[in-house]
Amino acid sequence: MDLEGLRVMGIDPGLTRCGLSVVQAGRGRQVLPVAVGVARTPAGSELAERLLRLSRAVKEWIDDYQPDVIAMERIFERGNVSTVMHTAHAVGVMILAAAERDIPVHMYTPSEVKKAISGNGRADKKQMTTMITRILALGEPPKPADAADALAIAVCHCWRAPLIARGAALSAPTTRSGVSVR
Amino acid sequence: MDLEGLRVMGIDPGLTRCGLSVVQAGRGRQVLPVAVGVARTPAGSELAERLLRLSRAVKEWIDDYQPDVIAMERIFERGNVSTVMHTAHAVGVMILAAAERDIPVHMYTPSEVKKAISGNGRADKKQMTTMITRILALGEPPKPADAADALAIAVCHCWRAPLIARGAALSAPTTRSGVSVR
Repeated sequence: MDLEGLRVMGIDPGLTRCGLSVVQAGRGRQVLPVAVGVARTPAGSELAERLLRLSRAVKEWIDDYQPDVIAMERIFERGNVSTVMHTAHAVGVMILAAAERDIPVHMYTPSEVKKAISGNGRADKKQMTTMITRILALGEPPKPADAADALAIAVCHCWRAPLIARGAALSAPTTRSGVSVR
Repeated sequence: MDLEGLRVMGIDPGLTRCGLSVVQAGRGRQVLPVAVGVARTPAGSELAERLLRLSRAVKEWIDDYQPDVIAMERIFERGNVSTVMHTAHAVGVMILAAAERDIPVHMYTPSEVKKAISGNGRADKKQMTTMITRILALGEPPKPADAADALAIAVCHCWRAPLIARGAALSAPTTRSGVSVR
């Protein structure tokens, strides 16, 4: 299954800092970097204002880079309750932005991303940054960590997409685009 | 502080069933019912599709009834993790719909709503339904529970709004509309 040219937008969700990236699948396991950045919203602002800003930033990225699919890190209920809830609100807003443009969203757990990129589901931030810099042949390591994470999530999807597409072809024909949010 | 005529939309957030209501403040503590209903999204559909449907339903209600303010029940991290996350995604999408229309959103905890309506922060569903039916002089109790809850949240805001407005007038002039999402 050849996915050369597939454009993947990677999102490391967050309300204060949201990592955003776009990569393009090349031949075989080659992946080319297209864009990387971080959308920030001021922690002191109202939640509604912050969600509005984040929504606009993500819509701008989607409209500018026209990804075929969005890969997002799945969030868990751990750490500060208020932070988790804010991130969950942000995820809702970003999934909506994708749905409004009929772009499928695929979710990956942090360990799935780590395993895909480094071969180790428990790789640390430094190992991940080193690997993603090498894989994308970047001149220097991407900063901040959220940006590197967003690239890792997008590359993870590029490498998992052929398997997903193959799985979808074998399964029921009701699976839309072969990629779904679960 | 006279808030007669204030239109409040009440939301009992949920992805499978989302209670929606609109009430209008009358004289003193009088509140008039305007509309009540439940937006449902099929549990078997993809999350993206469900958030899109819910977003459209809420936008339609806002555009049809033109509320001045939206009152929403604050969700907590309890019960099934996946349900809480889905509800949190839904809340994000609904706060965004309000923010896009510059409508302030105010959050209340379940016990704040119960206390405002029944005088008891631990009132049960039956007591709440009886009280809301009486307060709004409805011909019969609203059904399902989500619809009754949405009415209770809206009435709660009508009764709390004068206090909030008074508080805002006394505090720093930076508070936008005197009502904020926290």
